[in-house]
Amino acid sequence: MPSKTMEELVSLCKRRGFIFQSNDIYGGVKGLYDYGPMGVELKNNLKQSWWKSMIYERDDVEGLDATILTGPDVLKHSGHEDTFSDPLVDCKSCKSRWKADQLDNQSCPNCKSKDLTDPRPFNLMFKTSIGPVDDGSSFAYLRPETAQQIFTNFKNVLDSTNRTLPFGIAQIGKAFRNEITPRNFIFRVREFEQMEMEFFVEPGTQKEWLDYWRDRRMEWWQSFANDPSKFRYRTHEKDELAHYAEACYDIEYEYPWGFDELEGVASRTDYDLKKHAEHSGAKLSYFDQQKQDPDTGKNGWRYTPYGIEPAAGVTRGLLVYLLDAYHEETVPNADGEDSTRVVMKLHPRLAPIKVAVLPLVKKEGLPEIAREMVSGFFKAGINARYDEQHSIGKRYRRHDEAGTPYCITIDGQTTEDGTVTIRDRDTMEQERISKDEALQVVQKRLIES
Amino acid sequence: MPSKTMEELVSLCKRRGFIFQSNDIYGGVKGLYDYGPMGVELKNNLKQSWWKSMIYERDDVEGLDATILTGPDVLKHSGHEDTFSDPLVDCKSCKSRWKADQLDNQSCPNCKSKDLTDPRPFNLMFKTSIGPVDDGSSFAYLRPETAQQIFTNFKNVLDSTNRTLPFGIAQIGKAFRNEITPRNFIFRVREFEQMEMEFFVEPGTQKEWLDYWRDRRMEWWQSFANDPSKFRYRTHEKDELAHYAEACYDIEYEYPWGFDELEGVASRTDYDLKKHAEHSGAKLSYFDQQKQDPDTGKNGWRYTPYGIEPAAGVTRGLLVYLLDAYHEETVPNADGEDSTRVVMKLHPRLAPIKVAVLPLVKKEGLPEIAREMVSGFFKAGINARYDEQHSIGKRYRRHDEAGTPYCITIDGQTTEDGTVTIRDRDTMEQERISKDEALQVVQKRLIES
Repeated sequence: MPSKTMEELVSLCKRRGFIFQSNDIYGGVKGLYDYGPMGVELKNNLKQSWWKSMIYERDDVEGLDATILTGPDVLKHSGHEDTFSDPLVDCKSCKSRWKADQLDNQSCPNCKSKDLTDPRPFNLMFKTSIGPVDDGSSFAYLRPETAQQIFTNFKNVLDSTNRTLPFGIAQIGKAFRNEITPRNFIFRVREFEQMEMEFFVEPGTQKEWLDYWRDRRMEWWQSFANDPSKFRYRTHEKDELAHYAEACYDIEYEYPWGFDELEGVASRTDYDLKKHAEHSGAKLSYFDQQKQDPDTGKNGWRYTPYGIEPAAGVTRGLLVYLLDAYHEETVPNADGEDSTRVVMKLHPRLAPIKVAVLPLVKKEGLPEIAREMVSGFFKAGINARYDEQHSIGKRYRRHDEAGTPYCITIDGQTTEDGTVTIRDRDTMEQERISKDEALQVVQKRLIES
Repeated sequence: MPSKTMEELVSLCKRRGFIFQSNDIYGGVKGLYDYGPMGVELKNNLKQSWWKSMIYERDDVEGLDATILTGPDVLKHSGHEDTFSDPLVDCKSCKSRWKADQLDNQSCPNCKSKDLTDPRPFNLMFKTSIGPVDDGSSFAYLRPETAQQIFTNFKNVLDSTNRTLPFGIAQIGKAFRNEITPRNFIFRVREFEQMEMEFFVEPGTQKEWLDYWRDRRMEWWQSFANDPSKFRYRTHEKDELAHYAEACYDIEYEYPWGFDELEGVASRTDYDLKKHAEHSGAKLSYFDQQKQDPDTGKNGWRYTPYGIEPAAGVTRGLLVYLLDAYHEETVPNADGEDSTRVVMKLHPRLAPIKVAVLPLVKKEGLPEIAREMVSGFFKAGINARYDEQHSIGKRYRRHDEAGTPYCITIDGQTTEDGTVTIRDRDTMEQERISKDEALQVVQKRLIES
């Protein structure tokens, strides 16, 4: 996909109700986006697929949903107060502010002046006053990652579930970073969503588990993509590792501006649990009665678990699949002339609407048949949509853009022989099937997709 | 349920992994709670049931997921900057702060002093600085309700979906209120979740739609409850209506401290759309070409829709169903003596784990049979749990407390004749069924529940 389609994608996202600029009637707020009727379904489908793969299809991961507001102790001792910052540079000439790595040859991208301040650390965490006294003594951060509360809840989860190691704690939720310069649509934003998991393992086994999770996560991302070749691994160099990590792979995607991060899979060692144990006094360790303590040789080994962290961006995942889905094709129109069709080839399991049911005309009993069919889909838990507005050709194009994999059309023949057409989004091929089989046909295609 | 069980419920919620105090290893932050492995499933099941009832089982509601960070313009023109406050009173003697209606006979509940300040409005919205310049010029609020961004996105949703009125926009998400004194466990907290819908209707029809939604919402809440008699309506008096409302019903539940709010169903008139249209210049109106303008008599009527708002608390809903589920029963123990059983009679569709599979002993091939059965449940999309720790009696009690409706036990007889026992959480009755039928039996009972 050429990079010019980034603009076309943004435009389609607004037109079809995937993504809107937040607060746009008041001019918008930079780095904030709202998800419309199609976007929220796509996002929910992606999150539920992840949750299913982590919690319902495995027997060694527990879920968690902690608060966004986080006490300062947590983010002080995790190291975020000291280190979670970007280098900020002011242009003394036009007063604009930049992240140091965005400067054009060390000059201001806005006014080209070279009169810049030295870079200084700018902490990316949002802060808010909490409680009725606003004197700065009582505040909370908006969490910059969901992971910290997994660590602080380690003992709560262990005690309430009787888990033995290795096991993981998974969480989906919003996180917030006060980016100096949000950019690239929903790639770098100030409010985003993460799907993170800490998989707690015995010291010494972290390398094999890191590779295990790197591979599982790559398979998962590729399984929904039209073009799996656009994903790759990148191993972090020693000097770019976060303060808590001993090793890290990025799963990268080839965005219009080049390869960039989608998910990080890091070996966080026992850094976080140890820091929180030390400063809170809580016992954030694990006792394995089956093992011998390697130091003393005695039966039973108490240790601080190592954490392997696959940390994925929901918001970036959406962007990846929207880019992967976006196709422009030249197809003949009704008059046989070339026309351009935009089609979102979203994986059927991610597609917001699974099937659209379209009466060819708004009369002769066709709407009634269509509505009855829609309610049959609803009962089977399939998100269907009744749509009677505009010509049938326009409706097909609308659902191509929304990524709806199947369109079922009710026409005159339906009232005669009980058949309908089912149209495939990608091939545009139509087939006549019995209307009584429609549910079964759609169900089967969805399962096999 | 006597009010002393509030403490017992809090304790069970921690013990079984439903709800933990947030940041508790550092002493906790008041009014913030984290949801553990059982809590997150219960919450997700509740939210998904609501979404299904709004989006997938109807053909007139669209979804939305907007940002938490909200520009000040939105909340200024909605009236929240001026009116979203509680009356705050300082005790001049002990310096504690109170919501005016919490005072004991106008004296300080802490030190009994009568030396109090006059009440003054304390705005409940959390505020945070946004962007790299922290001079107070650029800030956002954490939304105090999800509804406002439904109004600001009205045109975006209308344009992208081709909807005709009446139709609704539904949203689930977090909202934040800097409560002066959070209390009653998860009832009054500073970070909570809402399920809100604005149903946009033609002026003049709002009364019938208000009653319609009040009744639908009550039916929905009651459908998951053991004791539907604990819910009631309360009509707002004129002097307690919010600034935007012309009428409002509360759906109330009888909590241990008495009847209190669970959901508000309000007729918000055209207040919000009109205010935002006026101040932003956006066209937040609707053109009905089928109708005549009642003022001019001409064909086609442009009007500002009226909003009917069922606004439910996810967090309060959880508390309601946890209270409704909590039962203490006297049952005979293994020695035939009376013992107390705590059982969470959660509706099977809300229960975090649907079925636990328990090998009687950790040998003779029983764990293998159990694990195979669990993976069969996983494949069918049913959240199952393998559990081999402690005696079978303890495991049953653990799953009673977690609200697991069915326990399947693999015992010696299983290896002989292929049968297993299935135990019902509420009746504690056990039945032998073929292990090959287990999935089907559980599926059937879940559907019929």
